[in-house]
Amino acid sequence: MSTRRSFWAWGLESDEPTPQQRQEAAERLSKRYGVAIEAPPTPTIDQVQLRAPRIQPPPALAAFCTMETHDRAAHSYGKSYRDVVRAVRCEFPNPPDFVAYPRDEAEVTAILEWCSEANVVAVPYGGGSSVVGGVEPPGGDRPVVSIDLKELDRVLEIDETSRAARIQAGVLGPALEDQLRPHGFTLRHFPQSFEWSTLGGWIVTRSGGHYATNHTHIDDFVESVRMVTPKGLWESRRLPGSGAGPSPDRLVLGSEGILGIVTEAWMRIQARPRFRASAGMMFPTWEAGFEAARRVVQAKLWPANCRLLDPGEAGAAAGVEGSHALLIIAFESAEVPQEAFIREAVKIARESGGEIDASGIKVSDGSDEEVGRQGAVGAWRNSFIRAPYQRNLTAGMGAVGDTFETAITWDRWPEFDRTVRAKVTDALQRVCGGGTLTCRFTHVYPDGPAPYYSFQGMGKPGAELEMWAELKQAASDAVIAGGGTITHHHAVGRDHMPWYRQQQPPLFAAALRAAKAAVDPNGVLNPGILV
Amino acid sequence: MSTRRSFWAWGLESDEPTPQQRQEAAERLSKRYGVAIEAPPTPTIDQVQLRAPRIQPPPALAAFCTMETHDRAAHSYGKSYRDVVRAVRCEFPNPPDFVAYPRDEAEVTAILEWCSEANVVAVPYGGGSSVVGGVEPPGGDRPVVSIDLKELDRVLEIDETSRAARIQAGVLGPALEDQLRPHGFTLRHFPQSFEWSTLGGWIVTRSGGHYATNHTHIDDFVESVRMVTPKGLWESRRLPGSGAGPSPDRLVLGSEGILGIVTEAWMRIQARPRFRASAGMMFPTWEAGFEAARRVVQAKLWPANCRLLDPGEAGAAAGVEGSHALLIIAFESAEVPQEAFIREAVKIARESGGEIDASGIKVSDGSDEEVGRQGAVGAWRNSFIRAPYQRNLTAGMGAVGDTFETAITWDRWPEFDRTVRAKVTDALQRVCGGGTLTCRFTHVYPDGPAPYYSFQGMGKPGAELEMWAELKQAASDAVIAGGGTITHHHAVGRDHMPWYRQQQPPLFAAALRAAKAAVDPNGVLNPGILV
Repeated sequence: MSTRRSFWAWGLESDEPTPQQRQEAAERLSKRYGVAIEAPPTPTIDQVQLRAPRIQPPPALAAFCTMETHDRAAHSYGKSYRDVVRAVRCEFPNPPDFVAYPRDEAEVTAILEWCSEANVVAVPYGGGSSVVGGVEPPGGDRPVVSIDLKELDRVLEIDETSRAARIQAGVLGPALEDQLRPHGFTLRHFPQSFEWSTLGGWIVTRSGGHYATNHTHIDDFVESVRMVTPKGLWESRRLPGSGAGPSPDRLVLGSEGILGIVTEAWMRIQARPRFRASAGMMFPTWEAGFEAARRVVQAKLWPANCRLLDPGEAGAAAGVEGSHALLIIAFESAEVPQEAFIREAVKIARESGGEIDASGIKVSDGSDEEVGRQGAVGAWRNSFIRAPYQRNLTAGMGAVGDTFETAITWDRWPEFDRTVRAKVTDALQRVCGGGTLTCRFTHVYPDGPAPYYSFQGMGKPGAELEMWAELKQAASDAVIAGGGTITHHHAVGRDHMPWYRQQQPPLFAAALRAAKAAVDPNGVLNPGILV
Repeated sequence: MSTRRSFWAWGLESDEPTPQQRQEAAERLSKRYGVAIEAPPTPTIDQVQLRAPRIQPPPALAAFCTMETHDRAAHSYGKSYRDVVRAVRCEFPNPPDFVAYPRDEAEVTAILEWCSEANVVAVPYGGGSSVVGGVEPPGGDRPVVSIDLKELDRVLEIDETSRAARIQAGVLGPALEDQLRPHGFTLRHFPQSFEWSTLGGWIVTRSGGHYATNHTHIDDFVESVRMVTPKGLWESRRLPGSGAGPSPDRLVLGSEGILGIVTEAWMRIQARPRFRASAGMMFPTWEAGFEAARRVVQAKLWPANCRLLDPGEAGAAAGVEGSHALLIIAFESAEVPQEAFIREAVKIARESGGEIDASGIKVSDGSDEEVGRQGAVGAWRNSFIRAPYQRNLTAGMGAVGDTFETAITWDRWPEFDRTVRAKVTDALQRVCGGGTLTCRFTHVYPDGPAPYYSFQGMGKPGAELEMWAELKQAASDAVIAGGGTITHHHAVGRDHMPWYRQQQPPLFAAALRAAKAAVDPNGVLNPGILV
């Protein structure tokens, strides 16, 4: 089994689909859309022709840099719909000129200093899972280095008393958990990209993780950050809380590589949960479901999961019969039995029309690892984790699909949802002659949900990217016009800049631009992103 | 009863102590320290001689500005120990040249624009409760206007569905709650300064409030902020959560008036709690108490209160017999009975040596408003709320006392506490020939406590400020050397700058300086604070 990352697909080379799997997927698509679809061959790296590097690694740093085609192609894109389509077509017109794999913080500093002096663009690269153009080199004439943090992959220190760990930024999700597990701890941050995203990437994109309520973003688990900038090291104190001026860490969180490269962080970790309780509740309507979610989260019971699937999504992902919405509520704790909590939450959700029989409430005292992974809840969970691999099967076959996510206050939510659905459905009709649009809540707050929409239609092979752009534009325009944020946890990247500019307070943009200039005076870090 | 603010004491003129109350306080102090103390007369405003204003309000703005002695004296200081001593002595060498009371946002904009054009220092003023020199004019030759937001005192809009309210920044705590109460809501942010502090002040100082765990600072209740800067308006979107770049609000939070003047904010509000449960638990030692607090907070039950008093503090504030520490745990909810929660918390605390009998656990289903206000818990609560008035009684009589607060991770906490106590006790011995030092936790986090120390010794009347400065230096040096923050929720102000500089990442300081210059190019807002 190859352990090399695929240069085009989600996962390793060994995760690339076989021709037969692709052919079966083509047949499913053919059937679904009533058109004849042939599976194009999957690409191989020897088909890829890249522009010659415009610059070479300096001799002093060459030991950890490469100009290999595979590395440059794999670092050209993240893993958005648009990225995978371009990659499967072997279209790599703007690859980084070389890729650096610094093996320690000193090498991060050295490569960044060299970039700053040589006026070479530095694109920090974590797990490469960006779906917003966050790791893509900017256009233009300046040479570009992709700086891949994969070698900084260790948990350096665990403070069991404070439940905190000092962790290198380049560690992927599974390797991070593998290093905490023997000590009985977990970071318990599971974005959908978990397998192929890193701690540093989570921090600079304000990643949204496992917890659906209360502490949803990685932000809340950051105790202190260490970041290399072109002007030197930026490191905050380890503090459980502080009121000393604006938080330095909160300026790093979401900075998307424009201020520096995060090398390590002290993170708040947790004892591994032992007590669990979960319930999957059916609602006769979408409206009844979101009313229940609102009431549960406003009761501040803080369930670990409180995920609502609309009827379309419940049918597709959890096998629930067509017209019902599904609300998944789950509690967990290392210390405290959770039955009382789930019963209170179920009681509140029932008052909004939620249906569940007594056997649908699963409670575990720790002896049964599988609670929360059965029935509709379990079906949804498996589907969630496997989703990114699904796109490998159909990439390049003409289907046009993507997800977009936001957050909005409850008072505006019903109208927002109606408008977004109308605009995107219209666009699907216009662009693809129809398609599907579904929604779930990935996270909920006392003042509003974070809805996550998925759409798909059939495009014309070869014209998918133009069709995708039109759909993306319609969705993003509707989100911004409706008062939402252009992203709740996917980040801004290059793809969201037109809409981010509309929502960002202009004077904050000016302040951020000035802050960036103070630490990156030559503007080598991710130019064109955020500012 | 005069409803005018006292120019020297905490509260209104009608809250100023009578000569007899002052004499009784002097006798208590005499007894306590074994020295003869006379109560000096309390000052009256006609004793105050101020420097002539160096500048006058421009005619277009004169309608909401005043050069009255009372206003200028009252806006010279906050309410720190040092402030009250200077005020009771009628020492006002550096008052603002005039005080502006803008009646709406347009007038805030007008006065700030004028300051920027005329190179006049603008000092934003909320409730004036700063204990860190946060509202004190800087020294130097530039004229100074104190901009008091008291006229912006309304709740403008309530969104019951999202549980959020749009609130003007100048509203004092009680007036804010009075406007939410008829709608069944509360902001439930109760810093000790509650009566004489404002929403805007809480936001720009990252105030710490009612909740001892989970959402402790005002930060977590801010949905969006509207701020006037010399370059124009800065306003963020109302969003329950976002991952679009660094949070604009988090740059405003803690900005202490150096970026602009907050005029209003959308705040997350709550249904008024109905279900309550509380317990006051005794611990044989301070160490057993803080071990229990750690375990309770790490179990993530998120009690509304989890306040630990050391034996000295438990004796003085809650009437608990001398050698025991007191842990006050309380839960509350508008929706969910809290008995299960308090029982779990008590169980955990008992495992660390906590003592309580069954009758010590108070549970209310909403019919009894008084639960949580009885026994040791109730005694502590009354003492907490009245504390700021106590200093009015003894101001200027020679006693030297203050509080300081910080946060530190659990692994370093025991050694930190030992060192801080040793250094401050040494200093008290050296400066005052002895004194008292006690500690409580005001807030606790899974990764560490926020300890709050109080000290007092007897000084020489007339030399108190120099003696105070030596004690403050010893305490602050110990906090910073031990790895803490110079403030968990009191803010930086002018008093904490030497230590803030030591803890602030230098590159963050550079970024903040640049951000300030982008919105306040002439540097008129609170020069010398934070940057």
